[in-house]
Amino acid sequence: MNCIFCDIIAGRADASIVHEDDDVMAFMDIRPWTSGHLLVVPKRHAANLSELDPADGEKVFAAGQKVARALRGGSAPVEGVNFFLADGAVAGQEVFHVHLHVLPRTRGDGFGLRGVPRSPSREDLDGAAERIRASLVSE
Amino acid sequence: MNCIFCDIIAGRADASIVHEDDDVMAFMDIRPWTSGHLLVVPKRHAANLSELDPADGEKVFAAGQKVARALRGGSAPVEGVNFFLADGAVAGQEVFHVHLHVLPRTRGDGFGLRGVPRSPSREDLDGAAERIRASLVSE
Repeated sequence: MNCIFCDIIAGRADASIVHEDDDVMAFMDIRPWTSGHLLVVPKRHAANLSELDPADGEKVFAAGQKVARALRGGSAPVEGVNFFLADGAVAGQEVFHVHLHVLPRTRGDGFGLRGVPRSPSREDLDGAAERIRASLVSE
Repeated sequence: MNCIFCDIIAGRADASIVHEDDDVMAFMDIRPWTSGHLLVVPKRHAANLSELDPADGEKVFAAGQKVARALRGGSAPVEGVNFFLADGAVAGQEVFHVHLHVLPRTRGDGFGLRGVPRSPSREDLDGAAERIRASLVSE
């Protein structure tokens, strides 16, 4: 199986590495949406959130949080940070090895979300919550 | 201090609740970008990632992952899921109590990212990685 992130983790492919420990690695995204855009990945291959060991998920988030703090408090501090994760092709996932995008933000950097929020009724929201609760219970 | 999410957690404000345990709560976003858009929040107030207890961050991500699995495997399965987190006003944060957006995705739902990715040189990426590593070390 070919996985570019597994190749990076194994040292078989180039990357600009920000952090590495036993469980996770963080490196610069080669197609950054903002300056300093990086990825945090679990070392153990998981194609998506369904395959991801929850303990690895926790470590990915913890590393992301640590990097975000460093970015906010660094010598050239950024004003904000976004986390973004795409699970599934329709959600924009392109590399099928779970990765958390960490995006330093500054005013006028051109990054943002596209979409029009709606204002459903409380009844509709309660119905949606009930359906998701039912799926959670049957997990 | 006024915090709408603390009010929801305390039962003083309405919400359509999907999940609750000792540490986190998940409820429907009242301005959903996609159908089923929900938020996962830590129960202990933290305005941003710098204030957030890393143990609470891990629990937020773990709950998000669990909800994502439920959405993907539910009776009306979605094709993908996005996680999004905004830290700081410039990053789009509006409620200053950490929250992870969980967005069910389906083809043509109109949600996405705005921005043009760049293709920096390896030298530039290495320089960025070095600066972030230096901030991490001084944390």
